[in-house]
Amino acid sequence: MKDRHHTIGIDLGGTKVAGVLIDRDGRILARERTSSLPERGADAVAETVALMVRVLAAAAPAPVAGVGIGVAGQVDSASGMVQNAPNLRWHDYPLGDVVHDSTGHRVAVLNDVQAATYGEWTYGAARGATEAVCMFIGTGVGGGIISNGQLFRGKSGAAGELGHTVVSLHGPGCRCGGRGCLEAYAGGWAIARRSYDAVVARPLAGRALVEAAGGDPSAITATALARAMKAGDPLARTLVREIEDALVAGLGSITNALNPEIIILGGGVIEALPQLLEESRQRLALQALPVSAAAVRVERAALGGDAGAIGAAAWARAQH
Amino acid sequence: MKDRHHTIGIDLGGTKVAGVLIDRDGRILARERTSSLPERGADAVAETVALMVRVLAAAAPAPVAGVGIGVAGQVDSASGMVQNAPNLRWHDYPLGDVVHDSTGHRVAVLNDVQAATYGEWTYGAARGATEAVCMFIGTGVGGGIISNGQLFRGKSGAAGELGHTVVSLHGPGCRCGGRGCLEAYAGGWAIARRSYDAVVARPLAGRALVEAAGGDPSAITATALARAMKAGDPLARTLVREIEDALVAGLGSITNALNPEIIILGGGVIEALPQLLEESRQRLALQALPVSAAAVRVERAALGGDAGAIGAAAWARAQH
Repeated sequence: MKDRHHTIGIDLGGTKVAGVLIDRDGRILARERTSSLPERGADAVAETVALMVRVLAAAAPAPVAGVGIGVAGQVDSASGMVQNAPNLRWHDYPLGDVVHDSTGHRVAVLNDVQAATYGEWTYGAARGATEAVCMFIGTGVGGGIISNGQLFRGKSGAAGELGHTVVSLHGPGCRCGGRGCLEAYAGGWAIARRSYDAVVARPLAGRALVEAAGGDPSAITATALARAMKAGDPLARTLVREIEDALVAGLGSITNALNPEIIILGGGVIEALPQLLEESRQRLALQALPVSAAAVRVERAALGGDAGAIGAAAWARAQH
Repeated sequence: MKDRHHTIGIDLGGTKVAGVLIDRDGRILARERTSSLPERGADAVAETVALMVRVLAAAAPAPVAGVGIGVAGQVDSASGMVQNAPNLRWHDYPLGDVVHDSTGHRVAVLNDVQAATYGEWTYGAARGATEAVCMFIGTGVGGGIISNGQLFRGKSGAAGELGHTVVSLHGPGCRCGGRGCLEAYAGGWAIARRSYDAVVARPLAGRALVEAAGGDPSAITATALARAMKAGDPLARTLVREIEDALVAGLGSITNALNPEIIILGGGVIEALPQLLEESRQRLALQALPVSAAAVRVERAALGGDAGAIGAAAWARAQH
């Protein structure tokens, strides 16, 4: 049999479905993107995924070796079952089987953040590392761990939930129901909430920041913080420092526990506030224990929004 | 060649050297214990270790297959080099080679807490688990991770420093130079310091606790806290609750990151305050994310003070 190098990766979330066809070197030969529209029901969403797979397969110069799907939710990779995906409103949906039956391709399913981690490790900023940690800071904070040259999955495939590392015992409430999670400081939703609270409590001090957000105190994002801070606004500077402190504490805990050689930071908040990367790099050297601090470097994610789809495609290759 | 099942394990710390001879099932056939007296210099301590190895080997019914040594410090297992062991005052001491040259046995060296973790996993409370976390809470707080049925070592062999998980950004100073580490609440040194501060600040409220410590406010231990709390002392109850809060937050972070099936708690503080185990068990179910909370159970360490030596012996077998 001829070598079959081409694989398809799909990144399936509550708002969009993104797909890529990649070759052995991770080059994107074709890409597709559409809305997921979960209100249509699980079968309709799965049919959109299957359609995208057929379109991408048709673009391949040779038969594809397999399909990987990264799903925003909890997944049982062995069975291809999506156990719980709140943004898709799915419970125990057999996505792997449905897409396989519809397309004839071998299908591997995993969590979307684990897929992005696998992508950064296979083709991105963590390439070649045997011990890596990826953290993606967007609306929420997700993560993934590579250990001993393998994706670290844990007992039920849920390992890598680094956003719910507690950095402050009695800190702000988190979406998870806990308190003081890293996500409750650094996630986009937390930035919006904490910034809103700050500008409402101190309207004069908050004026520049509200302006940077287009005049809407409830629309403050990491981008607005960056803009106001650049203009010298002290409140924005204070709010960003709180994010930094939480991030450095969380990364310190992770570094001490896992002794990785590389930590990759990515996601919208890092894109908007790249100084978080530089601060983390400098302060982690002091925060973590000397042995582990000496072993680790902090780098920016390299694959951007494609990490999940590319990683799912790479994962599909590794499974077959 | 006949099966060689017997191995020797040595637990080497700043105050004592403990050794065991075990059979294939982890049964202790012989044990030795002496003071390490590091002020004699590294060679003298290593000769004590070698002597203990010879004594234990003489007790074996058949030739021993190897020797494992768990050292309180940072170790390069590949070379058998002890890179840094503050309690022994060692830097780059080739313990593996020295003990091999002196005894003729194959020698494997690893960190003492990793050895204890390996022991609990091979013969103790974590037996049979593929994803396990051990936390030992004594004067300091150490830990170890088993993942995918292997000891998780990280890039430089330092993984598992779970005591330096930050649970409170602006919390109390830690021995590591950081702030708000779990150890800065739950470690024996922190219990003594925080209790002392509390009884000095509030002498009346602190009277019962000082009495439970034999009248010395600087001698308050986990045992004294347990005694005073049993007698209904509110200050002791408050101090123990702070330890619990920190422990639950730290275990929550670890559970979310690693998704283990079992967490083992051991060490002197857990022995003195077994309610920490029960509280952790109950509150972790709420603290961690549902998937990971459902997968994990919390159990007490089973091997007591022998875990390190037994684990080193088990490790020696696995290496050869």
